[in-house]
Amino acid sequence: MNKESVSRLIDAAQGRIQCDLVIRNAQVADVCNKEVFKADVYILDGMIAGFDGCRKAKEEIDAAGRYLIPGFIDAHCHIESSHLSPSEFSDAVIPCGTTTVIADPHEICNVTGLDGMSYMLKASENIPLSVFLMFPSCVPATPFEHSGAILNAEEIAEYIDNPRVPGLGEMMNYPGVASADGTVMAKLEEAYKRNKNIDGHAPSITGPALDGYAAAGITTDHECETPEELHDKVRKGMYVMLREGTACKNVLQLLPGVTEKNSSRILFCTDDRQPQSIVRDGHVNYGVSLAIKNGLEPLTAIAMATLNAAICYHLSDRGMVAPRKRADLILAKDITNGITPEMVFIKGRKVAEEGRIIAKAPHTTPEHVSGRMDVKDFSKAKLSLKPGSDHVRVIDIIPGGVVTGNGDAWIRRGDDGEWIHENDKDILKLAVIERHHGTGNAATALIRGYGMKHGAVATSIAHDSHNIIVIGDNDDDMARAVEKLISIGGGITMFKDGRELGTHRLEIAGLMTDLPLAEVTKCLDDMHETAEKELGVNKAIDPFMTLCFMALPVIPSLKLTDCGLFDVDSFSFTEIGIKE
Amino acid sequence: MNKESVSRLIDAAQGRIQCDLVIRNAQVADVCNKEVFKADVYILDGMIAGFDGCRKAKEEIDAAGRYLIPGFIDAHCHIESSHLSPSEFSDAVIPCGTTTVIADPHEICNVTGLDGMSYMLKASENIPLSVFLMFPSCVPATPFEHSGAILNAEEIAEYIDNPRVPGLGEMMNYPGVASADGTVMAKLEEAYKRNKNIDGHAPSITGPALDGYAAAGITTDHECETPEELHDKVRKGMYVMLREGTACKNVLQLLPGVTEKNSSRILFCTDDRQPQSIVRDGHVNYGVSLAIKNGLEPLTAIAMATLNAAICYHLSDRGMVAPRKRADLILAKDITNGITPEMVFIKGRKVAEEGRIIAKAPHTTPEHVSGRMDVKDFSKAKLSLKPGSDHVRVIDIIPGGVVTGNGDAWIRRGDDGEWIHENDKDILKLAVIERHHGTGNAATALIRGYGMKHGAVATSIAHDSHNIIVIGDNDDDMARAVEKLISIGGGITMFKDGRELGTHRLEIAGLMTDLPLAEVTKCLDDMHETAEKELGVNKAIDPFMTLCFMALPVIPSLKLTDCGLFDVDSFSFTEIGIKE
Repeated sequence: MNKESVSRLIDAAQGRIQCDLVIRNAQVADVCNKEVFKADVYILDGMIAGFDGCRKAKEEIDAAGRYLIPGFIDAHCHIESSHLSPSEFSDAVIPCGTTTVIADPHEICNVTGLDGMSYMLKASENIPLSVFLMFPSCVPATPFEHSGAILNAEEIAEYIDNPRVPGLGEMMNYPGVASADGTVMAKLEEAYKRNKNIDGHAPSITGPALDGYAAAGITTDHECETPEELHDKVRKGMYVMLREGTACKNVLQLLPGVTEKNSSRILFCTDDRQPQSIVRDGHVNYGVSLAIKNGLEPLTAIAMATLNAAICYHLSDRGMVAPRKRADLILAKDITNGITPEMVFIKGRKVAEEGRIIAKAPHTTPEHVSGRMDVKDFSKAKLSLKPGSDHVRVIDIIPGGVVTGNGDAWIRRGDDGEWIHENDKDILKLAVIERHHGTGNAATALIRGYGMKHGAVATSIAHDSHNIIVIGDNDDDMARAVEKLISIGGGITMFKDGRELGTHRLEIAGLMTDLPLAEVTKCLDDMHETAEKELGVNKAIDPFMTLCFMALPVIPSLKLTDCGLFDVDSFSFTEIGIKE
Repeated sequence: MNKESVSRLIDAAQGRIQCDLVIRNAQVADVCNKEVFKADVYILDGMIAGFDGCRKAKEEIDAAGRYLIPGFIDAHCHIESSHLSPSEFSDAVIPCGTTTVIADPHEICNVTGLDGMSYMLKASENIPLSVFLMFPSCVPATPFEHSGAILNAEEIAEYIDNPRVPGLGEMMNYPGVASADGTVMAKLEEAYKRNKNIDGHAPSITGPALDGYAAAGITTDHECETPEELHDKVRKGMYVMLREGTACKNVLQLLPGVTEKNSSRILFCTDDRQPQSIVRDGHVNYGVSLAIKNGLEPLTAIAMATLNAAICYHLSDRGMVAPRKRADLILAKDITNGITPEMVFIKGRKVAEEGRIIAKAPHTTPEHVSGRMDVKDFSKAKLSLKPGSDHVRVIDIIPGGVVTGNGDAWIRRGDDGEWIHENDKDILKLAVIERHHGTGNAATALIRGYGMKHGAVATSIAHDSHNIIVIGDNDDDMARAVEKLISIGGGITMFKDGRELGTHRLEIAGLMTDLPLAEVTKCLDDMHETAEKELGVNKAIDPFMTLCFMALPVIPSLKLTDCGLFDVDSFSFTEIGIKE
């Protein structure tokens, strides 16, 4: 703010000039003392001016004793996981009370590199939701796959001075940090030089490895799974996030580790939330409500989702209901049993009411981020799978998470050595087809637990390199599904007996769409129903999300990249056929 | 840190390289979880590398179960009040466990302007104590007196980008902030532009005035006097400091307002601590110990004096015992009943033991900060006091503070109208002589309660403009005392019957000396004794500190500046003689 705008606030605080808006009779959540107080809250030029000393306002809203809460800050999320463009994401999460997000465009940058960063910055610049973008630190996520881009220290240096870039996104390469790898350190140094944040990603890392990770200046983690792990990370100086995503849900696991004494070091985040989760359950407010319902003091929970994130990311202009803070506010009837926003304000403007967006975000035409489909010589023949043995390694799906089992099975092979699908066994073929650089790479493997009886499902969302991944019992449907995605620039599609059963187009990088939330969820709901009823996919798993994580070589135990079957535990490639 | 030094820490944390020092068998104060844990703490290159994973160290210290605490951070102090140069101040406070100070060179800058700022930066640059300097926001403190310099936005802009300048020092001109005065706003804007801190000074300011003050972006206050005031300021988003200075002591007053829930918004500071207070009682550790003895949880108190201050001033490299933080550490036998440091470490080097400094700070020759004594035409005649009435206004000293009463008395006057001292009345003459610009200004007034029977006491410490202030029963001794200070460039001196009873020379700006702490306290102790025994000064007051605050026109109720008698309550000059 400049002195003129601050002078106006000072004048307004003391009743010398009129405010724009007053919210009367509110029970204000004071996240600094962690208590509630009754007040009229005055707003001028999008900022909170003050309380009792202000005299008049052009507009008045009677809170009638409802709670007035600072807007929620999502401390870490990937907008891409919503399948929505930033503008549609804004429309989707604001009604949930989220007014600021610290987003990591890790997915789109893994597909489109700096074009993705530029698009995300531009598309999120003039929308109601306040979006900060951490620069992705791990593009590619690992050297064991082909991503669409490689972003190193030079690229980081180009972008990290942007005031909307608070630092480096989640550093997943914890072996690289532990070994003080040169490329990793060069990336980190760009943040050191500017005293900017570095987000962490350190699942199950404790003890000396965690000391090394913390010594690298990484100050947050959202991958804790136990209260003990949370406690250890807090001790080492990190801010720990309670994550409540669609697949990864840690709030209830971690809650026993949160005390009033350490709560100032704890934040909330959503990480990856699917569109249906946002529509049905909410966004940050869902995690906050879950924590409150399970015994966390409401004011402590609210402080974690507001003030603490503002402190962690140096956002000194928000996070509390106090003079000179942004009037990013939530009005809610109750805070003692969860928080359902009735009205949401951003910079003093009412942007949502009763769960519906009012201030729709302006749309930005995606440029240079079309779904890259540089697939070389794809044909059905690329899906060939000849294990070399009847005894094979199998990726075992474990419902409720993204970790897989490293299983084995006995199969049948044809005279040509090709795997033969057996109806009485729940084993299917999985293939990953490289789509960024025309390498012609395609790799196949076997997977168990998906449940599908007949047909194929394919998607261009395949963490973290987002090549095309396809699952099926027959090569014809699989090939058609892959070809469909190539032709439309990415998305999710299903085929059975040569017939297209449903397609969800994701024309932005093969990850996101410009369609509005309602259409996206309608399409996905229909496709889920079809997947279950017509393809027979296991009800215990999400047919599409499960598939998305089968190519992620940083999560145990057995995964498939475009380069082959990968044993995460030994961090090396392996064979399908087991040599006896 | 650069990537090479971080890589070394990462290596050390995991035992790949040897550390410099290990402190074994410590009970480490974890200020993030607010609990104690047992560990060996390894240090490399002045930073904490880690705990169990480190293998060996060149040097080993056995803590034998003692507590290992992060070094204390004084969130606000004026080094000048110690009478010591920065190097001697370092030697004085480090044994108390203070390892970082946020100092405001408000006093020396009021005398010497930017030369004072430059000297303080230079003199504190290469000493063991880590010194940050807020740029003084109020030079002069008020327009009702002559200070040695005027520092405005242009001067702030020259210095505020220095990484050792975290922002603007205490904004005492709260009426100027409340009215959004142009000069004040121009100063504040220099901090806004750079997102730097602005310290506050808002005694008894609450309600709408406080909203306006907070709206100005002022984020700390160390002038709270009641738990209610603390609570209100925390609610408005400010960090509140528990101050324990020599004259102003707020820890016990404010403690009832500190709860576990709001403690993350509370810091400790010393503001003004005299050398004897440091020697006898300690520094930040004194306030911390007082709070603990009076019921504050030890870990909460420690977090307030370490982590909270680090967060408030964006000092991300300190404030906790964790990897990659500076090894600024205190070893102490006990934390449950106050904290007495046995050893103090700064950047991993043992700098004090058993209350004695080991790492003496290198001395910096003061340049351009000699005690400015540009006094025009001083003579005894300047001390003339002709009230114009027998009924006069009298400055009433109130022991135990710096506030005075606005009293009245009946006096005797000679034929020439001159005030005549009466032995049976405890009324003395007070004079302030301008010393910065040769204006020739001198003003006199009457003061009651000092107790001195005969003689004169003068000092060049006279907050905040630091002109010469002198008190006495006769003009001869008063004139000699003033002349003495002019001749030596400032200090404190006492005369009786033409004889010099003692002088404490303060050759740096008339405020500080290059002498070591022991000599300063010895000299002051002797002078205190003389003042009491030979001059008969009231035992209930400090003879010198009391005098220092009689020219401070921002503290009620009646004060004397070089421009005349000042009624602080009406914020205007007044007459000595009362017109009936």
